[in-house]
Amino acid sequence: MTYTADDTSARLGAQLDDHVIDLAALAAHHGAELPDDLLSFIQAGSAAQETVRCLLAGDRAGWPTGIRHLLGDVSLRAPLRPGKIIGVGLNYVEHVEESSRSLDTDKDLPPRPVLFSKPSTAVTGPGQPILHNGDLTAQLDWECELAVVIGRTAFRVSEQDAYDHIFGYSIVNDISARDQRRSGQWFFSKGQDSYAPFGPAVVTADDIPDPMALDLSLRVNGVTKQKSNTRHMLFPIARLVADISSGVTLEPGDVIATGSPSGVGAGMVPPEFLSPGDLVEATVEGIGTLTNPVVDAR
Amino acid sequence: MTYTADDTSARLGAQLDDHVIDLAALAAHHGAELPDDLLSFIQAGSAAQETVRCLLAGDRAGWPTGIRHLLGDVSLRAPLRPGKIIGVGLNYVEHVEESSRSLDTDKDLPPRPVLFSKPSTAVTGPGQPILHNGDLTAQLDWECELAVVIGRTAFRVSEQDAYDHIFGYSIVNDISARDQRRSGQWFFSKGQDSYAPFGPAVVTADDIPDPMALDLSLRVNGVTKQKSNTRHMLFPIARLVADISSGVTLEPGDVIATGSPSGVGAGMVPPEFLSPGDLVEATVEGIGTLTNPVVDAR
Repeated sequence: MTYTADDTSARLGAQLDDHVIDLAALAAHHGAELPDDLLSFIQAGSAAQETVRCLLAGDRAGWPTGIRHLLGDVSLRAPLRPGKIIGVGLNYVEHVEESSRSLDTDKDLPPRPVLFSKPSTAVTGPGQPILHNGDLTAQLDWECELAVVIGRTAFRVSEQDAYDHIFGYSIVNDISARDQRRSGQWFFSKGQDSYAPFGPAVVTADDIPDPMALDLSLRVNGVTKQKSNTRHMLFPIARLVADISSGVTLEPGDVIATGSPSGVGAGMVPPEFLSPGDLVEATVEGIGTLTNPVVDAR
Repeated sequence: MTYTADDTSARLGAQLDDHVIDLAALAAHHGAELPDDLLSFIQAGSAAQETVRCLLAGDRAGWPTGIRHLLGDVSLRAPLRPGKIIGVGLNYVEHVEESSRSLDTDKDLPPRPVLFSKPSTAVTGPGQPILHNGDLTAQLDWECELAVVIGRTAFRVSEQDAYDHIFGYSIVNDISARDQRRSGQWFFSKGQDSYAPFGPAVVTADDIPDPMALDLSLRVNGVTKQKSNTRHMLFPIARLVADISSGVTLEPGDVIATGSPSGVGAGMVPPEFLSPGDLVEATVEGIGTLTNPVVDAR
């Protein structure tokens, strides 16, 4: 996780029970070196991960006090600023159906992954506001998605090898201003500032035995709107990595937002959209809950 | 411009007649400091630009020899790696018409700018190959576009203030694999590696008196395919900056590819597409020509 404590600049931490451990400080205490941000840590590869595993498995009795913080005492930030975020549209069967009823998409299942992107300026962290600009949209909508964080550069990677290129998993809430599609293109409707809440942490791949069998759900003001399981993805993770990397190089820290199950606001009868004051909680099993308030940003 | 000489790493240079001047080296010679890459130079703001103007206006007699290279002796690279590249679709009236005939877009003029994006991994430099993967596409197409390079962070900028946020202008060839649209979304068709040739240089805004009155043209194997003028843009540059920045923060080094005039391959009768061995030259008045060969990348 990426966190701040006592208003210091952002640090790279690992959660250990109800504590966050400052990894660069822990390494320094043992005479080792580790990057102090997640993107550099991912780029440093498996040796850096091995160092962390050793350090965390060691005797904690001698750790100096400044190295560990109570989870409740730190503020979490977006884990990193990805070079690119590639979204996958219409990747859950029931969402394809609701989308064809309420939006302008086809009723048929897409024959290939439907890809779009969000810029890194759209990223915001856990607890940070989703910006509601009533001058631009009356249809601000949610989408809870499992996020795949790339670990090793991937170009023309096979489905068999796809998982070798994944560092870990997180959550992206794929926020859309449904009324800001532009001649069908989703970039402006999905790419605005704060439209990619990301976090609360990245769970490394070794801690997620089967990413294709995770419950995911989303609540607005405590009321469950989405509830599904990643096993219902139309194109599974390995296929997405293979398909995207057939033409687009995936780099360490890049994020694939793997698509939303049904239960988006546009699909409700009547439609429901986000308003200032709402609280949105996106949960993925084994990762946690990403909570963001909606604020008036006019 | 960003260049390499004698296989050194990339350097920031300024063209002076038929020479390229190594700006960081020139600054060091005068006891000043300048970044040696274009993105850092843009981020350094107007003070850095003023330094360059003073240095280049000074007496050249005393310049040491290693500071200047003949233009023919260097290799140009893509000017920088943008944080984001925002493309504008259907921004020339005649292209809207040809696109509605040959692709799946509307016949009516779009009421708002049609926005999409290309990832930074799509960028390639002058002279570098456009990758033709016959396993993925039989419809590789060209689009010559004026590129706007952002100089100062822009969020909710008015049309009146838009030009204050522009560093300069360049050329992007918006390459598309027309048959890789995914349920209408353009990201995969326009976002693959090498699909954003960019360069040959960035001309600073003070050297382009009217960016809305520039001839632009594109040739394939010497035959002119596109020929227009930026005055025919449907949404002019100031409107694009205002519209995009109403929701998406534009950062220094970000690029807006302002759209293509008519004359794309998909609009020809019969359609014409790029094949390995082709040479594509995109020219914008006052900026130069961006030349890229098409190579078989299977």
